[in-house]
Order: sequence, then structure tokens, then C-alpha cells
Amino acid sequence: MGKIRIGILGYGNLGRGVELSVGQNADMELVGVFTRRDPSSIILQTKSTAVYHMDEAVEMRDAIDVLILCGGSATDLPGQTPEFTQYFNTVDSFDTHANIPGHYSTVDAIAKSSNKVSIISVGWDPGMFSLNRMYAEAILPNGKDYTFWGKGVSQGHSDAIRRIEGVQDAKQYTIPIPDALEAVRSGSQPKLTVRQKHTRECFVVAREGADLKAIEEAIKTMPKYFCDYNTIVHFISQEELNEKHGGIPHGGFVIRTGVTGKSLEHNHVIEYSIQLDSNPEFTASVLVAYARAAYRLSKEGSYGAKTVLDIPPVYLSSKSASELRAQLL
Amino acid sequence: MGKIRIGILGYGNLGRGVELSVGQNADMELVGVFTRRDPSSIILQTKSTAVYHMDEAVEMRDAIDVLILCGGSATDLPGQTPEFTQYFNTVDSFDTHANIPGHYSTVDAIAKSSNKVSIISVGWDPGMFSLNRMYAEAILPNGKDYTFWGKGVSQGHSDAIRRIEGVQDAKQYTIPIPDALEAVRSGSQPKLTVRQKHTRECFVVAREGADLKAIEEAIKTMPKYFCDYNTIVHFISQEELNEKHGGIPHGGFVIRTGVTGKSLEHNHVIEYSIQLDSNPEFTASVLVAYARAAYRLSKEGSYGAKTVLDIPPVYLSSKSASELRAQLL
Repeated sequence: MGKIRIGILGYGNLGRGVELSVGQNADMELVGVFTRRDPSSIILQTKSTAVYHMDEAVEMRDAIDVLILCGGSATDLPGQTPEFTQYFNTVDSFDTHANIPGHYSTVDAIAKSSNKVSIISVGWDPGMFSLNRMYAEAILPNGKDYTFWGKGVSQGHSDAIRRIEGVQDAKQYTIPIPDALEAVRSGSQPKLTVRQKHTRECFVVAREGADLKAIEEAIKTMPKYFCDYNTIVHFISQEELNEKHGGIPHGGFVIRTGVTGKSLEHNHVIEYSIQLDSNPEFTASVLVAYARAAYRLSKEGSYGAKTVLDIPPVYLSSKSASELRAQLL
Repeated sequence: MGKIRIGILGYGNLGRGVELSVGQNADMELVGVFTRRDPSSIILQTKSTAVYHMDEAVEMRDAIDVLILCGGSATDLPGQTPEFTQYFNTVDSFDTHANIPGHYSTVDAIAKSSNKVSIISVGWDPGMFSLNRMYAEAILPNGKDYTFWGKGVSQGHSDAIRRIEGVQDAKQYTIPIPDALEAVRSGSQPKLTVRQKHTRECFVVAREGADLKAIEEAIKTMPKYFCDYNTIVHFISQEELNEKHGGIPHGGFVIRTGVTGKSLEHNHVIEYSIQLDSNPEFTASVLVAYARAAYRLSKEGSYGAKTVLDIPPVYLSSKSASELRAQLL
């Protein structure tokens, strides 16, 4: 059997993660990377693979089984997923939660009319977290679920700090509050405010002569991003920021508690958690597993848009169903 | 739309749990409970449902959408699942790991020839733990997974103690060792012996005049069950056993760590855990969610034996795919 031929569209942190992940999966090969930039400016890890301009992708439609779309959700994917699903089976990580139903409908119509499979909103949230919320809710219908994020870097919050006058650079960590986690695990199904669930810790590099008090105040009172949280601000040097806060870790918890029994006297806790040294590399690894599923679904003619909720788990694994039954059940 | 009509075959702890779980799912109704005992000796929680002798089940084949088989794996299910899958869509909790491939083949042939769906080996291990091992392995192929069980009651080990001369009653708890859990979470992928992973704690009621030293020795040196573990033995009164150790709690952890990155420099941890006040009621809740999937698969004509690895997650939920996309993704 030939390998599954993968293409990558967009070569930022996520695209680089997909490249590395494909290298860990022996049943796949990377056929091409497509970029908006000058292809000659990009050097891949995978020496045998060529870089092309994005405009050349469609010509290579017959050489690629699944195109993994590695653009951003704000401006890239809303256009790219519909466009490229005309020609390719695709996987994307569209994560603007409120717009997922609309994105699904648009992509589903195109995928069905072009006999392609598109698995949208793949990653960990949306993605593995959604899946775990769904399984836990189906098993324990009389219950309540909670999602915590972190400890990890929020790109959006870091960007928001960088836009404040006098700020040269910044990194923001979202941190779940241990007491809130414990209260949830106890099964008491607490009502938790935004402030009770997460702390925000900011490492900020100020420009020379900047008013530190004013920066701290601007952060802590920023609507939507910080004002509803307890926020800790540290001023540090650019060197320290680069050295100690250069990574992109993330993670989180999905916890559901529920009750069963004649008098609902039995409490149960289902908890799924991840701790990631590299958020983009983990997300990329999830995308690659779902690319395998997209390939198999297209082989059996199950065209249309899908999400992680629709995919039989066995389709993600490089092992056969009978191997999995023997080894994992 | 009519409700999904459920039957229960076997009315022990698991069957009672299924009955209660069906009561928590508004899209289901319990049509009948089938028992090997005298039906008049059984009083259900569900007043509107009748109890029948097992021999009457086949006559009711048209009144039941899914029959949930609640017998044991040692002697009941190897015969019952093939037999009843001739007439019903079925779900079982067959958990003799080594025999799952054989059980699957037997049931698959019967299910296909009788146009039925049978979802086998449903529960938490095999079941939700298998599923989590599979997802985590597919996402992080360069990694290693670990399963810990407990803290919880092992019925098999409790029975083994009760067979020792001089023992009147006993309860055995399997307990994961915290240092082992931490070593696994660190990503160091430790090699752990059986003894390093779990402790066994036994609460024993001795008969009057029994030789306590001899009992303790017999437990701690029992091959297969205890000799490879650090085992703690407490002698207590029957009253204390009844009062403090009457429940059937269980739980456990599936943890996979894996690496990504150019130099495999990024470590990731995926952890799934459950803590259950009632092992049979939780297992029953999983069976009921998969009964919904069996019903849907049979409606679409996807006949044959299945395991949790084959089932699209969305089939477990009482909500529609579009509701789930809007609420959980």
C-alpha cells in the first residue's frame, strides 16, 4: 500500500508542527508545502520535499491525498477551507467557536458537491476537549462539565498587552486556580465566576522611561481581556523574557461530575487533561491523525464536512481494527 | 419519534445500574427485564416495567430495540451474546481481555447473518480506557502509555481472600502508587514493575479462633493475586466491614506521554481518569450510551459486531449533530 500523501498549506508554527508530525507517522509522506511567501525563502526540515507558492497548489491536486490547512481562524481559514475543499480532502483547525456551525455548513456543501472530505475544527479545543465533553455528557447525563485552560500562553492576551503604550514585549499565562479544580472534582457542581476559575499572569518588558504604574493599570482594567480576572503583572527585561518565556506551552482540563443511583447517592468524576510543552506541535499532531481519517473516509466515499464528533476512533490509528482490538481493548 | 425500547438480560448489580441509567435518559424506555430466577421474586425500581423469565425474551424480539446483556464474562456472555444477537441488537460488557478477538469474531458472524448490531466489551476497561489509549497513541505515536487502576474494590481479589481457611469475609482495594503516577506524568517513560504501580489493601474478617498470622501469610504469598505486590492486611469486625466497606467504588488513570519537535525536545502528557462511587452503575451508564449507538447503527443498516473503537462519538449522544456542534465544539 502506498503512503498517504500530505500537503501543508501555510508554514507558520502550526505548519512546521505538521511537517514534524508527518515525519513521525510511517504511513504518511509529505508531498509539498504551499506558502504565500516566496518559496525560496523557506527551508524545510524534510529535505526531500519541495516548497511551492500557494497559487500552485491546485495544479497538484492529483498528487495529494489530504491538504492540511495551517492558516489562522480570523482571516485565513474562513476563505481557504471552502476554496481548497473544491480540489482536496482537507483538515483545518478553525477555532472561532461561535462561527463553527456556519463554517461547517459552507464547507459541507462544497465538500459534498466536489466529492471531498473536510474535517474542520480539529485540535484540542475545539477538538479533543469537545470530544471529551461529549463522551462524558453522554455517559453521565445528570451532571455538569467544566473546562479549565492552562497553564499556558494565550497569544491573544499577549498581543493585547503589546498594544499598550510603553510596552515593548509581553507574554501572558492563563493559570487554572487549584481551589476551583478541587471544588469541581469534589462533585459539588459549584457555580464559579470567571475570576474564580483562572488567574492571568503577565510578564511585561517596558520601553525605557515608560510609566510602569500606568501600564499595570492599563492591563488590569482592560475590558474583556483582564478586568474580570485577578491579574498579576511582572516587569522583566527583554533578555529574561526571551530566555525564560520563549516557549509556547499550554494545556487544560475537562472535568465532568455526575450522579447515579436510586437516590442519586453515587458521585462520579471523569477528567481529561493535557499538559503540552508546545501548543502548536500538539495541535499539529491531532491534525495529522485526523488527516488519516479524512483519507480513509474519502476512500469509502463518505464525503462532506465532518468534525471530531463524527469520526469513528479507529480511523485515526495507523493500526488495523483487529490489531487494536487485540492490543487496546 | 418513539423512544428507544430497551431490554435488560440479567438483573444483578449491573442490570440494576442499567435500569437506573435508562431512567436518566429521556429518549429511552425500559420494556422488560429478563432473569434466570423466578420473575415474581424480583421487584424493579421502574414500576411500569415487567420482569420475565429469560426463556421468554425471544418472543419479545419485536418489542425491544436493544437488549443490554448484564451477565458475567466468565460463564454468561460467551454463550449469551452469540445466542441473543440472533434476535436482538445487543450491547455487552465482555471483559476477558485475551478472549475479546475470539468473542468479536463469533458475534460478528451472527450479527451479520441476522442483520443485527452487537457492541461488545463496553464499559470502562475495556471501554473508555481502550478508547483513550487509542486516541492518545494516534496523536502521540512517539510515546508510551500507562494504565493504573483504583482506588477501588477488586471483586476477584476479595473472592480469593474469602476462599482462605479461617476467613469469614473480606474486601480488597487496588491502590495506584502516587510516586509511580508522578514518574509517569513527568514524561520520563519509566519502566515500572507490578509492585511499583499498585498497592493492595485488604480488610479481612476472621472467623472466631482463626490463626491471624496464617491468614495474613496466606494472603501475602498467594501467587498471581498478591505475591508480586506490597500487600497490607487489616483485621476488622464484620460490623466495621459492612459499615465502612460496603460500597463498590473504583476508578483509574490512562496516561500517555510523548514527544514532538525537531530534536524531540517537547514533552506532552495526555491523562484520562475516572473516580467512581459505584463501579457497576458507571459501567451501566456506559452500556446505555452505547445502546443508543447500537439503535442508530441498526437503523442505518450497519450490521455486525462493533467495539467502542468503531463508533462515531456523535451516536452516543441524545443531542443532534448540529446541537453538539453549536454547544460542544
